[in-house]
Amino acid sequence: MSAPRRLIPPSPALQDALDFLELYHAETGTPGLTTRRRQVLATGTITLSTDELAHGARVAWRNSTRCVGRLPWAALNVRDLRHVTQAPQVFAALCDHLRTAFNGGRIQPLMSVFGPGVRIHNDQLLRYAGYRQSDGSVVGDPQNVALTEHLLRLGWAGGPGTPFDLLPLAIEAEGQVTLFDLPADAVQEVAITHPDHPAIDALGLRWPALPVISNMTLDVAGQQFTCAPFNGWYLQTEIAARNLADEGRYNQLPVVARALDLDTTRRRSLWLDRALLELNVATLHSFDLAGVRLADHHSVTRQFQAFEAAEARAGRPVRGLWSWLIPPLSPATTPVWHQQYDDTEVKPNFTAQRPAWQEDLRRCPFHSG
Amino acid sequence: MSAPRRLIPPSPALQDALDFLELYHAETGTPGLTTRRRQVLATGTITLSTDELAHGARVAWRNSTRCVGRLPWAALNVRDLRHVTQAPQVFAALCDHLRTAFNGGRIQPLMSVFGPGVRIHNDQLLRYAGYRQSDGSVVGDPQNVALTEHLLRLGWAGGPGTPFDLLPLAIEAEGQVTLFDLPADAVQEVAITHPDHPAIDALGLRWPALPVISNMTLDVAGQQFTCAPFNGWYLQTEIAARNLADEGRYNQLPVVARALDLDTTRRRSLWLDRALLELNVATLHSFDLAGVRLADHHSVTRQFQAFEAAEARAGRPVRGLWSWLIPPLSPATTPVWHQQYDDTEVKPNFTAQRPAWQEDLRRCPFHSG
Repeated sequence: MSAPRRLIPPSPALQDALDFLELYHAETGTPGLTTRRRQVLATGTITLSTDELAHGARVAWRNSTRCVGRLPWAALNVRDLRHVTQAPQVFAALCDHLRTAFNGGRIQPLMSVFGPGVRIHNDQLLRYAGYRQSDGSVVGDPQNVALTEHLLRLGWAGGPGTPFDLLPLAIEAEGQVTLFDLPADAVQEVAITHPDHPAIDALGLRWPALPVISNMTLDVAGQQFTCAPFNGWYLQTEIAARNLADEGRYNQLPVVARALDLDTTRRRSLWLDRALLELNVATLHSFDLAGVRLADHHSVTRQFQAFEAAEARAGRPVRGLWSWLIPPLSPATTPVWHQQYDDTEVKPNFTAQRPAWQEDLRRCPFHSG
Repeated sequence: MSAPRRLIPPSPALQDALDFLELYHAETGTPGLTTRRRQVLATGTITLSTDELAHGARVAWRNSTRCVGRLPWAALNVRDLRHVTQAPQVFAALCDHLRTAFNGGRIQPLMSVFGPGVRIHNDQLLRYAGYRQSDGSVVGDPQNVALTEHLLRLGWAGGPGTPFDLLPLAIEAEGQVTLFDLPADAVQEVAITHPDHPAIDALGLRWPALPVISNMTLDVAGQQFTCAPFNGWYLQTEIAARNLADEGRYNQLPVVARALDLDTTRRRSLWLDRALLELNVATLHSFDLAGVRLADHHSVTRQFQAFEAAEARAGRPVRGLWSWLIPPLSPATTPVWHQQYDDTEVKPNFTAQRPAWQEDLRRCPFHSG
C-alpha cells in the first residue's frame, strides 16, 4: 500500500506525464497503466500516442475555465499532425482544417496538432485587418492593429482597405516566418442582415463563420504543443455584443442605432441596449439563414448546466471563471449568473502565447526597455 | 522617528480606533489628532463624536466594494441617534428617515445611526411580503418568504394577500422585538408604466421609491453599529433586471413578453432579452414621470469612473467587486466591464448581519443541526 520511495522527485514535466497517464487510463478504461508508467519512468520522457494526445486535448477543453461551451468536449476531433513541421505543409493542413471544421455549416469542433518549432502568429486563423489612420482612427478591427502592423513588417502588401480585409497567416516553422494568403474556398463568412430592418443589412457587416484559436499552447502530459489550433462554433454574443459592438472593436452600436432611427441624444433612452439587442437578433438570424451553426447565450448556458451535471455524475469538479462564463447580453437571465465557480486552473489546459510582435520588440536593440 | 514601543499590542478594536482617528484627522483637516489619540489610549476605548461618526459612515460607503453608486459618498447625511434605544422612538425616527430621504422625489442619501441593542429584522425598510402557497408557488416577493414567515411567527396578522403587500418592521430593542406597520405617508411607491405599451401598465407592477438597507452593521473605529439603516437611490437595473425579472424573484419577463405579444416558443428569438429591455425602459419612464430620482446603468457607471478619478487624485485606491459593479443589462456597453478591480475589504465598512430567523433556528432545540 505504500508508494515506492524515490530519492529524486520527478521533474514537474515528468510528474505531469505520470498524472496524465493515470487520468487517461482511468477515464478511457484503457489497460496497461503500469507498463506505460514504467516506460516513461525508464526514459524520463513521454511520447504520447495519438489516442493519448486526443484525450489530452479533449480534457484541456473540459478544463478551460473561460469557456461556457464545454458540453461537447468529448466530441472534439483531433488531427495528429506532429510529423508536420514545414510551413507549406502546415498551411495546407490549416486550409484543410478550415474546410473540414466548417463542414458545410454544420461546424464540428476540431483541433490540429503540429510538430515542434511550429507556431502561428495570428491569434485566430480568420481575422480582419485593422489599419491605423493618420488621424488615429482605425479602418477594420482595432484589436488587430498590432497584428496587422506585424504582418506588414513581415512583408504583407496590405489588403484593399475595406473594414473586413482578411489577414494572411504568418506561420513560423524551422526558424523562419512565412506569410500565406488564405484561398477563398477555405474562408466562410456570414453577412449580417436583420429579419425586420433592411437598414441594418445595408451596413454591410459580416463575420467569419469559424472561430479557430491559434495562439494558445496545448499543455498535456508535461509537453507543450505550440501549434494546436482548435475551433468550436461561435456564440452570438461574441460577435454581436463584443466584436462588432465594443467601443474598442467595430463600435457599431451608434451606427446600428442610426439605422434604426433611435433617439441617441440621451443614454437614458437605452438606445445602446436596443441597438445591441437588434444586432444580436440580426446575427442569430443571419447565421441561421446561412445554415451556419451558432450558439445563443440562453441555450449555451443551459448546456453548461448539463455539462456541470454530467461532470458531477463523473465525480469531477467543474472549474470556471465567472466573468468569462456570463454573457454580455442580459446575463442575469442565464443560470450561470446565479452560480459561483472555483477558478483554479488544472492541466491538461491551454495557455496564452505572448504575441510574436512583442517578442520581436523584446529582441530589438532599439526597444530594450 | 521610531514608534513608541509597547509591551502589549493594542486590541484589534483599539487599533481600528487609532487607524480611524488618523484617517479622520488627515482627511478632514481637523486638528488635535495627538490629543485625541491620547484620550483613546488612556481609556482603551473610543466614543466617537458626531462628526467622526458621520465621516466614518461616509468612508464606509466609499469603501463598499459592491456599490457602483459611490460618487456622492461625501454627501451622505448622517443622523446621530445613538441616544435612541427604545423601539417606538426608533420606529418614529425610521418614518422620519423615509420622509426626509424621499425629499419629494429628490432623494438624498441618508443614514440614521441608533443606539446599542437596536436591530431591524427586515433587510430593507420597504419590502413586499412573499406568501408561500400550498402548491409551493409564492404570492409576492419569493426572496422575502423567510422574512414574511418570521414576521407571522412574531404575530403579524398578514396583509391583504396582493403581490405587493408592504411588510411591517420588526424592531429589536432592549431585548424585545416589536412589530410596527409603516404609515402610508412614509411609504412612496412608483407604479410601472411603459411609454408605448399600455399592456405593460395593465400588469399592475410597482416598486418602492427608496432602497433603505437595514440589515448591515456599520463598522467604524472598532465599533459596531447594528442599527444604521441607510439609503441612496435605486439604479433601474436593480428593479427591472433583478427584482421584477429574476426567476427567483417576481419572474415577470414571461408576463411582460405576453403583454408585448412576443414569440416565446424559442429562447433564440431573444424574447427574454426584449422583455427585459422594455421593462427597463418602463421603469426609467415611470420614475421619471413620478419625479423620483433613479439612476440608469450608463450614467452610474460613468459616474463611477468620475469617482475613480477623484479617488486617484486624492491618492486613494478604489476597491471593487467586479461581479457586483457590472450591470445585469448590456454590461459590456459600460466602462466597468472592461476594468479589473481589487476586491479586498478595508474599514470603515458595512458587514451583513445574519438574518434574525436564522438565529431563532439556531437557538431552537428542535433545529440544533
